[in-house]
Amino acid sequence: MIDTILKRSSVRRYTDEEISRENLDKIIRAGFAAPTSHNSRPWHFIILDDKELMKNVGQNMEYAHMIEFANKAIIVCADVTLAPECWMLDCSAASENILLAAESLGIGACWTAVYPYKHREEVVKKFIPLPENIKPLCIIPLGYAGKPANIKDKYDSTRIHYNKFNW
Amino acid sequence: MIDTILKRSSVRRYTDEEISRENLDKIIRAGFAAPTSHNSRPWHFIILDDKELMKNVGQNMEYAHMIEFANKAIIVCADVTLAPECWMLDCSAASENILLAAESLGIGACWTAVYPYKHREEVVKKFIPLPENIKPLCIIPLGYAGKPANIKDKYDSTRIHYNKFNW
Repeated sequence: MIDTILKRSSVRRYTDEEISRENLDKIIRAGFAAPTSHNSRPWHFIILDDKELMKNVGQNMEYAHMIEFANKAIIVCADVTLAPECWMLDCSAASENILLAAESLGIGACWTAVYPYKHREEVVKKFIPLPENIKPLCIIPLGYAGKPANIKDKYDSTRIHYNKFNW
Repeated sequence: MIDTILKRSSVRRYTDEEISRENLDKIIRAGFAAPTSHNSRPWHFIILDDKELMKNVGQNMEYAHMIEFANKAIIVCADVTLAPECWMLDCSAASENILLAAESLGIGACWTAVYPYKHREEVVKKFIPLPENIKPLCIIPLGYAGKPANIKDKYDSTRIHYNKFNW
């Protein structure tokens, strides 16, 4: 498990191999298993597999063009009325679960940010109308990796402190 | 791996069993492996094992009194100058990695929120002085579980949508 956490990296190029319904279901279930503030569970998950829609979103979303070439994508959203101040934390934990579940199944994924960028939210809403109370946090394209992962070791002992902050 | 994600739950009662340095190191390394916006890696991790300090923080922090009785605790913080708008997302993903790594080692943990509550941040800073640019997201007490976990199935098919939002 910890190996999977350490090995996970952003995958931005994908093969055409199909992600099975069963694996997609496992990935989504991982999202639902994240902790949430006051157990508010504010999340909604929009699964994209319509190629025309993915092309439109990908071509118009900055830093996320690879959505067009992914096999599937998941938009992690929240009903912000359920957790007005914490929905972005709750959905971040759910998104990390999704990334890790995908990695554990050999499926590549990448967190592409929508929040906190208003113009990116507008791109989502142009192609996928959303109620006022539903905010997208990120879009996670999914696909089998088209090239070997570039695993970074981000450990930095200067960021670890004991019982007080050293500065 | 996915089983670990699904099994993870908040553990609030702990035995006195010591968490080894080796396991603590694995848990912290998992935190560092999370994705961050623009690869900003804004995080700092403050490890608490001073019992007097943990008692002070626990007795003064709302909804987080169990910190006093944990074997260790980790305060997940950020240098907000490195990711002014996204540090709370980055640190949420790191926190989820910490919770999952602990679970995979048989160690109980619980996300206790500091952010976005200003008065909780003041409690942290009263006992652990922090520079102006360092903000705590949460405190994660760690310990071997003192009672069986209460695993919730939070799956809800009404929160899953396909290519459009149903409302």
